Amino acid sequence: MERIVAHYYIETPLAIDHAAAVLAGEQSSGTFVNIPGETEELKRRFAAKVEAIDLLETVNQPAIPGIASSGKLYQRAYIKVSWSVENFGSNLPVMISTLQGNLYELTQFTGLKLMDIELPLSLTQYFRGPQFGIEGTRILTEVYQRPLIGTIIKPSIGLSPAQTADIVKVLVDAGIDFIKDDELLSSSANSPFAERVDAVMKIINDHAHKTGKKVMYAFNISDEIDNMQRNYDKIVQSEGTCAMISINSVGISAVKKLCDLGQLAIHGHRNGWGMLNRHPLLGIEFPAYQKLWRLAGVDQIHVNGIQNKFWESDDSVVKSIESCLTNIAGTHTILPVVSSGQWGGQAPETYKRTKTTDLLYMAGGGILGHPAGAAGGVKALKQAWDAAITGLSVEEAAQQYPEFAQSVAKFGKKV
Amino acid sequence: MERIVAHYYIETPLAIDHAAAVLAGEQSSGTFVNIPGETEELKRRFAAKVEAIDLLETVNQPAIPGIASSGKLYQRAYIKVSWSVENFGSNLPVMISTLQGNLYELTQFTGLKLMDIELPLSLTQYFRGPQFGIEGTRILTEVYQRPLIGTIIKPSIGLSPAQTADIVKVLVDAGIDFIKDDELLSSSANSPFAERVDAVMKIINDHAHKTGKKVMYAFNISDEIDNMQRNYDKIVQSEGTCAMISINSVGISAVKKLCDLGQLAIHGHRNGWGMLNRHPLLGIEFPAYQKLWRLAGVDQIHVNGIQNKFWESDDSVVKSIESCLTNIAGTHTILPVVSSGQWGGQAPETYKRTKTTDLLYMAGGGILGHPAGAAGGVKALKQAWDAAITGLSVEEAAQQYPEFAQSVAKFGKKV
Repeated sequence: MERIVAHYYIETPLAIDHAAAVLAGEQSSGTFVNIPGETEELKRRFAAKVEAIDLLETVNQPAIPGIASSGKLYQRAYIKVSWSVENFGSNLPVMISTLQGNLYELTQFTGLKLMDIELPLSLTQYFRGPQFGIEGTRILTEVYQRPLIGTIIKPSIGLSPAQTADIVKVLVDAGIDFIKDDELLSSSANSPFAERVDAVMKIINDHAHKTGKKVMYAFNISDEIDNMQRNYDKIVQSEGTCAMISINSVGISAVKKLCDLGQLAIHGHRNGWGMLNRHPLLGIEFPAYQKLWRLAGVDQIHVNGIQNKFWESDDSVVKSIESCLTNIAGTHTILPVVSSGQWGGQAPETYKRTKTTDLLYMAGGGILGHPAGAAGGVKALKQAWDAAITGLSVEEAAQQYPEFAQSVAKFGKKV
Repeated sequence: MERIVAHYYIETPLAIDHAAAVLAGEQSSGTFVNIPGETEELKRRFAAKVEAIDLLETVNQPAIPGIASSGKLYQRAYIKVSWSVENFGSNLPVMISTLQGNLYELTQFTGLKLMDIELPLSLTQYFRGPQFGIEGTRILTEVYQRPLIGTIIKPSIGLSPAQTADIVKVLVDAGIDFIKDDELLSSSANSPFAERVDAVMKIINDHAHKTGKKVMYAFNISDEIDNMQRNYDKIVQSEGTCAMISINSVGISAVKKLCDLGQLAIHGHRNGWGMLNRHPLLGIEFPAYQKLWRLAGVDQIHVNGIQNKFWESDDSVVKSIESCLTNIAGTHTILPVVSSGQWGGQAPETYKRTKTTDLLYMAGGGILGHPAGAAGGVKALKQAWDAAITGLSVEEAAQQYPEFAQSVAKFGKKV
């Protein structure tokens, strides 16, 4: 029987093989005493197995609370643990409980982070994964050989449908490829979902009929499941192409249900991610995280950006982008969504480090706050990516492109 | 318009009012530059508001990575932030994205934990909350004036339906009130869900017809949404009374959908909780967490137990139990599920500290591993609670009750 392998980064005050065995025991037999019925045959078939232990450094202070070290030393290590897929079959939530369940509670660890998952073929073939992904999003938007340029409607919350549509009009006229709702807005008293879809899609459809360019708008459908399905249908009926879901806030079972409908690209917003990832020795790393959401069928997922306004390092962002582009048998790749404090100045470094244009490159204030307005903002971002692909530096690009030069003057203090 | 108030425990290297303002800005207007359309009227109506700041100590080391302090000091504080409920209406996922979204990403904080939430009346009245809760679970099981005594089928994974039913037979004959699947098992090749329900419910229904006592069995339905609904229906048809869901693995939108069906008590298993809570300055504290799941309608929720085998302190467990018992207008209270390394020896301390019997008190190995078998295990647990309510110590109880004395001899090394 095939096995799933989980890579953990751990810290423990105990002998490492003992700690690893406790983890494997908790996540298969699951009790603190030997009990009747737990035969050797049963253990062989269902028990978690410690596949590898790679020792790292020792430290004097525990990363998170747990049992104290008698010798005041805490050993760090990478460990690999495997389970037979028979344990959970094709049940994604139970797979998650197996890989990410009570093991975080074990006092034998003073640090535990799920770094990556090796998915066996039976799983990647069972889950059809993203229906659109990179390729499908490009087909829907007809944007090729450069990143999609996107923006977020700001202010996040408070605009009426008509006000939102006015901003959308400015943006589509400016040549934008993609627009999204903010995660703080789904349906509110002053912007009911259906009215916003009507107002926005009228602009987008008119623009498409006139110019042939269909701008993708990610309407935030995050909600209870029945409301999500109703709002999804509303987008489909209105000839929209995308729905956004705050994947952590909604949860994987409901997200998969919506992805399975297969008529809209699903834009996965990962707000709340810092809670799951920000500590170096607790939670989950993005390479593992994006695999779970790819199995569920999410088409686009946020990865922050180079020199973002948040806490995440550039190295981590680069690793996240690379993990999205890694092939998983049987599923499309997932489109990395670069955002957070982006204005174009980060394009050269982003391209230099990732060598890809398979990105949805999002700027909020960087577009709407451009000195020459949204048209200047979109132009400046396209210029930044032309420059990046050509190999120009920010300074060289600013000399060549006037709109990008304006961005540098306004937003480029850090560069 | 009513406001929701969130209490955060934070740490920052910046001036505290500046950091708090950044949080409020990110979670309402949401961009790094002033942009057209963000009027003063709109800000007044929709902006998050910093309601209070209570300074705590300063420390020399940041709790989690963020921007460095120029003076090498990091200020800790409790802050309260409020939003108009108009921002998200009755949309639970968007409320979660508001309270627990991108704010965890802010580099201006080197620690941020959601401690509690003040829910306005409009929300607690809109969400009908737990359909069963403490009262309903007692009515379904006919257990009053003492904790429900429960256990988990072990080994967690690998038993056939017939083997599971054999254990259930032993347990119901022993006088147990409640039994649950382990979170690692839902439907597997060697224990298909429907077959397990048939085998288990035959035992439970036969026992109920014979004795009048209906044991509650929490079948783990955690899965994709359509499978969960099918398995829920199977339990209802088989005259079961409870379904278990791994709430973190499944997610709140799908959990609420199942709770809304209202025919079964929903047993909320919080595996993965350590990831969300274990760091003192990252994630969410239980008082806030259980309110979210009460709004979704979960009837029973895990809280660990006194002297548990996991990392959690007794103080934290007591606080969790108390928060479950707190009244929220318009919703039933939620039944705290005490588990993890429990065998009865912790009953006196649990009662002494919480003064409640409104508990589902779970022992796994503590029952099935009892020297006199499951009957002795269940008897010992009931004795432990009789003793606890009477005010006996563990030693006094062991002198009075022979089965409890056997538990002390086998499991009581730590006492």
